[in-house]
Amino acid sequence: MLRTTTCGALRLEHLGEHVTLCGWMQNSRDLGGMTFIDIRDRYGITQLVFNMNDDTDLCNAARSMGREYVIKVTGTVVERSNKNKDIPTGDIEIKVSTLEVLNAAKLPPFLIEDKTDGGDDLRMKYRYLDLRRNPVRNNLVLRHKMAQSARRYLDGLDFIEVETPVLMKSTPEGARDFVVPSRMNPGEFYALPQSPQTFKQLLMVSGFDRYFQIVKCFRDEDLRADRQPEFTQIDCEMSFVEQEDILNIFEGLVRTLFQEIKGIDLPSVPRMQYADAMRLYGSDKPDTRFEMLFVELNEVVKGKDFAVFDNAELVVAINAKGCAHYTRKQLDELTDFIKRPQIGATGLIYMRHNEDGSLKSSVDKFYNEEELKKWSAAMQTEPGDLVLVLAGETDKVRKQLNELRLEMGSRLGLRDKDKFSALWVLDFPLLEWDEESSRYHAMHHPFTSPKAEDIALLDSKPGAVRANAYDMVINGTEIGGGSIRIHNKELQALMFKHLGFSNEEAQKQFGFLMNAFEYGAPPHGGLAFGFDRLVSIFAGLDSIRDVIAFPKNNAGRDVMIESPSAIDQKQLDELKIRSTV
Amino acid sequence: MLRTTTCGALRLEHLGEHVTLCGWMQNSRDLGGMTFIDIRDRYGITQLVFNMNDDTDLCNAARSMGREYVIKVTGTVVERSNKNKDIPTGDIEIKVSTLEVLNAAKLPPFLIEDKTDGGDDLRMKYRYLDLRRNPVRNNLVLRHKMAQSARRYLDGLDFIEVETPVLMKSTPEGARDFVVPSRMNPGEFYALPQSPQTFKQLLMVSGFDRYFQIVKCFRDEDLRADRQPEFTQIDCEMSFVEQEDILNIFEGLVRTLFQEIKGIDLPSVPRMQYADAMRLYGSDKPDTRFEMLFVELNEVVKGKDFAVFDNAELVVAINAKGCAHYTRKQLDELTDFIKRPQIGATGLIYMRHNEDGSLKSSVDKFYNEEELKKWSAAMQTEPGDLVLVLAGETDKVRKQLNELRLEMGSRLGLRDKDKFSALWVLDFPLLEWDEESSRYHAMHHPFTSPKAEDIALLDSKPGAVRANAYDMVINGTEIGGGSIRIHNKELQALMFKHLGFSNEEAQKQFGFLMNAFEYGAPPHGGLAFGFDRLVSIFAGLDSIRDVIAFPKNNAGRDVMIESPSAIDQKQLDELKIRSTV
Repeated sequence: MLRTTTCGALRLEHLGEHVTLCGWMQNSRDLGGMTFIDIRDRYGITQLVFNMNDDTDLCNAARSMGREYVIKVTGTVVERSNKNKDIPTGDIEIKVSTLEVLNAAKLPPFLIEDKTDGGDDLRMKYRYLDLRRNPVRNNLVLRHKMAQSARRYLDGLDFIEVETPVLMKSTPEGARDFVVPSRMNPGEFYALPQSPQTFKQLLMVSGFDRYFQIVKCFRDEDLRADRQPEFTQIDCEMSFVEQEDILNIFEGLVRTLFQEIKGIDLPSVPRMQYADAMRLYGSDKPDTRFEMLFVELNEVVKGKDFAVFDNAELVVAINAKGCAHYTRKQLDELTDFIKRPQIGATGLIYMRHNEDGSLKSSVDKFYNEEELKKWSAAMQTEPGDLVLVLAGETDKVRKQLNELRLEMGSRLGLRDKDKFSALWVLDFPLLEWDEESSRYHAMHHPFTSPKAEDIALLDSKPGAVRANAYDMVINGTEIGGGSIRIHNKELQALMFKHLGFSNEEAQKQFGFLMNAFEYGAPPHGGLAFGFDRLVSIFAGLDSIRDVIAFPKNNAGRDVMIESPSAIDQKQLDELKIRSTV
Repeated sequence: MLRTTTCGALRLEHLGEHVTLCGWMQNSRDLGGMTFIDIRDRYGITQLVFNMNDDTDLCNAARSMGREYVIKVTGTVVERSNKNKDIPTGDIEIKVSTLEVLNAAKLPPFLIEDKTDGGDDLRMKYRYLDLRRNPVRNNLVLRHKMAQSARRYLDGLDFIEVETPVLMKSTPEGARDFVVPSRMNPGEFYALPQSPQTFKQLLMVSGFDRYFQIVKCFRDEDLRADRQPEFTQIDCEMSFVEQEDILNIFEGLVRTLFQEIKGIDLPSVPRMQYADAMRLYGSDKPDTRFEMLFVELNEVVKGKDFAVFDNAELVVAINAKGCAHYTRKQLDELTDFIKRPQIGATGLIYMRHNEDGSLKSSVDKFYNEEELKKWSAAMQTEPGDLVLVLAGETDKVRKQLNELRLEMGSRLGLRDKDKFSALWVLDFPLLEWDEESSRYHAMHHPFTSPKAEDIALLDSKPGAVRANAYDMVINGTEIGGGSIRIHNKELQALMFKHLGFSNEEAQKQFGFLMNAFEYGAPPHGGLAFGFDRLVSIFAGLDSIRDVIAFPKNNAGRDVMIESPSAIDQKQLDELKIRSTV
């Protein structure tokens, strides 16, 4: 090694030791005849001291270096007169005897500090410098620790990590595939996996019993702020299990991660029906760090000649505790918030339960104090509370009120990033109607099993069929989900039929799986956690980008390596493809 | 769980317990009024017993099942009268009280037994059935354990696993890339990584200090028997190190794997110069399980009017101990072996050191007994030995004799799969001449550093420049290699120049790396182990195919899922590409 120890290791107990350190020059301060330099590596920061009187050449050499120079120094550990309590090495410094510049450095385009002056674009272009900053590196260290911990947990329960192919087959169902032209099979293409779903099911047919994989998956989607074309899943599958077994084992995984990584004892994870989540939170991924449950008011408010409510399919409200003092301006802000095109509500109705006990609504013309008392009773208001009411079509108004609830949670400081609330959402619908293609799509994927008691509804009322499907939600973010799968060829064929596949299409795309089901497929199920998302929640981040070492931007570009890029005509010729741009 | 225990868990201590097992019907035997069924899962095999007198319906139901039916049985653990010492559960059987068929099975196209009757093609088409066989599944369990063990070792040494992008940039240097058309950036392509080389070097520039990743890599090559288009590496990189540090740490990894996985204490790994390996074994990956070193005979044999030797650049021989008794037929076989077009020798010359002490060669016309005594002395023969001699151009004849040495090693049983001999080969040449392109190529890759003392030779004698590069070889197979990298922009630019890159080409392809070197790059180096190969050596297999769950065939096809395949015109249109087939 070029060094004897790291920049994070030295303490008072090492006084007098002769050491060699390597690292980057963080900063430099000249004080009279002394020069102090902070040298940084992954493990910490150590102060170096040079004295002009002791060695003029050495001190001048130290003064001539710039930020981010890579250096190697040898010296003696001495006690600092002016101790720094903020860093673990703050009691000591190195009296340097030799200094070697291992590599010079141009001045970085932004500060390598916890708080940097670099904008997003610059940080991405020089990601290798951004990664030097503690907060960014710490996210990746956290990611590593979480992956190790997850592997230990699963290995301890006899799960086997099996690598499934990255070069697989395009399946038009679901999101768009990235495809890879095959040179050896001209005119044909591999596809990158959106998930190893079919392979992990085949592993169950093979008797692997308990499988997992921390694995890259790919989706060629138009990227929203928090999507990446390649992302990582903790992908799992088990045989001879029921839903209850899956919930227990993977709840155990999440609780183990919280315990080992953050020292937090997460309580046993509550469970909620999908239908209840939609009714009480207007969302299948409710943020349960705070209550503020929806209350449906149809029974209370209808029939008073207020057309907005009378014509609405659903009138639904939340009680914003302690917000009766909201000013007109604040209420206008909330109204503007829910009227934004992304949310699309037409208006906000409110009722104040004033501190003096009086009730005052924005629709006093239609509802007298007597009527408002019924609102208050339904909403369980106390003096000081504010009721916010929306009305409209059930699905839309629930989505709108969900947004308003989250906004109020944020305003009231109820969404603390250091507080964690997990939830299982169960019994998702099997199918959802897609307006664009005018047919039902699988809500999870086509391999999810319907609840046995609902199979009879497949023909008559497909939208009402519930699936053996479950999601885990933490702090309002879906971090994973799965299902008990179909393991029987006939039921799988029936599902494909209901999803609008012809027999030929089903056979062409998934014939290998349906054939496999004929050779002794066990009952099985599993789930996948979005690993990037899980790490970002542990790191207290809103975006997954900073838990990925080399992320792509919203146009799917890596601006550091300038990829994607044009390729040689020779490569295209060999692949027997041509660009039509 | 559908079961209370597995098919591998029950022993005499469980007698009388009421248990539920799930698994596959391995086989069935009817003996008078009794039916015995072996039920199999990943954990083992348990015998079930049904008695026609006790429950006729149940016994008939058992008799009606076929091989590979998936069943669930409940019963009582009883002692077997006829114990089976070959399996851990052989002392007990289950007296079955209830039987449920969870899934029927068609008769598999081959036997699900350790020795199967299925040929390669059939096994690959029904890989999900092949994976049910113990030897195949055991290979993947071994693979899992090795990955876990490697991660533990590296994590324990402060290495951080960082995921690098799969969608990266095409770099024409090296093997062919698989490319991925970008829909969002029409006319542009991502490439799948041949290795994360540049990214791991950038992580060193970022100060990550110790990086590893068990990672899929991709090469679009014409597949030889033992190559796969996607393969897995244990990829590692360290900062502030010298070659010695890398050798020690990764020798430690391999020895830990042997210890933890196979209970073998591998001795400290010997080291050999590349030049010595070529001289003594004719190979940069010698099989050191046996000696049979090359002896160069130019000094001994030249000048005796035997044109074959006199005209040869190199005359070189091995001593096949104890093979003097080889018959004319056996010697003809060896001659045919080395004359095969793949090897290409023109002829084999031999000398027998007979048991009676006499020396007899195939070129007695030119060499009398006195001369042959010199051969014997040089080859250190004893009575009973056979000397095999080849002559020709140095590089070619070494390759040929390497093949002959390996063949003799196999014939003499010196290449035991349960014996392991590891070797570091050091100081590889930096460059190798490529006939086709008439220029030097990087022997490892363009980021490998030349030895400081050889840099002066870059202009005058490029082929003589040695690199700070090393390979680990086990049992004659290269399982990994690496180098100390260039960390300085000027030297990297010089390397690209010597590899025939114009400044523009170098900047276009690797500008991001050379730019990064200007912002404070530390000295660094690393290596990558071929994980598939390493597992196959641990498993005692010649091919990597059976340590990969879903391998592709020599045409790059997955015959099970029928991939690659044609994709929809709509997909091609969206990607703005067209097939020219």
